[in-house]
Amino acid sequence: MKIGRFKIKEKIIWGVVKKNKIFEIISPFEKQEIIKEIGNLNEAKILPPILPSKIIAVGLNYRDHAEELGMKIPKEPILFLKPPSAIIGPDEFIILPPESKEIHYEGEMAVVIKKPIYRPKNFKEIEEAILGYTCFNDVTARDIQKRDGQWTRSKSFDTFAPIGPFIETEIDPNNLLIETYINEKVVQRSNTKELIFNVFELIKFISHIMTLLPGDVIATGTPPGVGSLKEGDIVKVYVEKIGILRNFCKTL
Amino acid sequence: MKIGRFKIKEKIIWGVVKKNKIFEIISPFEKQEIIKEIGNLNEAKILPPILPSKIIAVGLNYRDHAEELGMKIPKEPILFLKPPSAIIGPDEFIILPPESKEIHYEGEMAVVIKKPIYRPKNFKEIEEAILGYTCFNDVTARDIQKRDGQWTRSKSFDTFAPIGPFIETEIDPNNLLIETYINEKVVQRSNTKELIFNVFELIKFISHIMTLLPGDVIATGTPPGVGSLKEGDIVKVYVEKIGILRNFCKTL
Repeated sequence: MKIGRFKIKEKIIWGVVKKNKIFEIISPFEKQEIIKEIGNLNEAKILPPILPSKIIAVGLNYRDHAEELGMKIPKEPILFLKPPSAIIGPDEFIILPPESKEIHYEGEMAVVIKKPIYRPKNFKEIEEAILGYTCFNDVTARDIQKRDGQWTRSKSFDTFAPIGPFIETEIDPNNLLIETYINEKVVQRSNTKELIFNVFELIKFISHIMTLLPGDVIATGTPPGVGSLKEGDIVKVYVEKIGILRNFCKTL
Repeated sequence: MKIGRFKIKEKIIWGVVKKNKIFEIISPFEKQEIIKEIGNLNEAKILPPILPSKIIAVGLNYRDHAEELGMKIPKEPILFLKPPSAIIGPDEFIILPPESKEIHYEGEMAVVIKKPIYRPKNFKEIEEAILGYTCFNDVTARDIQKRDGQWTRSKSFDTFAPIGPFIETEIDPNNLLIETYINEKVVQRSNTKELIFNVFELIKFISHIMTLLPGDVIATGTPPGVGSLKEGDIVKVYVEKIGILRNFCKTL
């Protein structure tokens, strides 16, 4: 099932997408019961599929990326947070701020949480805490990241967290092609089976630190091939069986 | 004016405190008009005074602390984020997780935002964006912080963001005594005039990165004297003219 948020006929709704039609649902967290068909996808503005209370992101989590950089495989996930104010939806603009000369895309698969979870006792609890998966772009001001040491500022600019288009609820996240395109040219290509810490391990690790709440997002890390965004660029993050997250770039 | 959130007579409300009485208000963000007197402070449970969409914290921001450590005065604020899920109110327990052997208090003054602010054009815009000031404890697993490099994990455990008791709306934040007590013994003592980047400079800097939203919290940094918390400890953060934030400690 593909769940999204839409602006359609002057209303903002949660909806399920089936063959280009949108069916309104009350909420993605409780029962995802359909209220009614509400219109065609092409009549709607696709909004960010989720407004999380927090975005937890993971650094250096693709085996092939670590090897490319000649870096050791980390023993534990490296975590950082991005602020919810950075979120934008599909087809929105990534705003390149003048404070950075080197702004990078980082195509990622993200997990969206369905139920509160804290220090789960078994695997089933982890599985049941997952709503689904979506595409994410962990936009990063690389020059600021290097200068600051702490990654927060470089990853927190408004518009630096594109997410969407939909949350896919019925896939195995452990073997999906992931690609990033700049102006139709592929610049990142890997598979989620290259993740050093997979989705379930990440949820276990993170929920031993902080309670994950419905709607919270975990961005699982980026594969090799990160590079610059420039004014006018069109950047697309593709994850197999999920879809394409497309955004445009402009300067502030 | 002292604004807080309270549970009283089975209701959760925003209120203003005057001489141990609570007067209900609709919201602290728009007009803070009083609806009615609702009861005495001692009948109420004092809740965290705010539930922010994000908590931005600042590292190494007291001149005397930087000198103590023999570190250079930073040229720009060092930022990190704490997740809203870490927030607790006054008199609640800080839970010491088994993953850390060295959990530290960091007494701080925090600013609470009243109006959305992004890249302000003048000082007046900054002043008007402030709701007020409160006490904050930036609890940190120091051993994990040193090991990880990135500070996020060490500062994100549930209960690691005590805040309160009230938001004081009518003070000058630039000359306030700040102290932390462990079991009645003073362990940190400084003055907010020692801040390297003051409240207004911090808001300017941070809002050039991310839009600050009503309720967002900026923890302004900690003075010299950080140290360990142990099971059974009572920790108090005092900021002059604001009040005392008291919390207890226990292991998970």
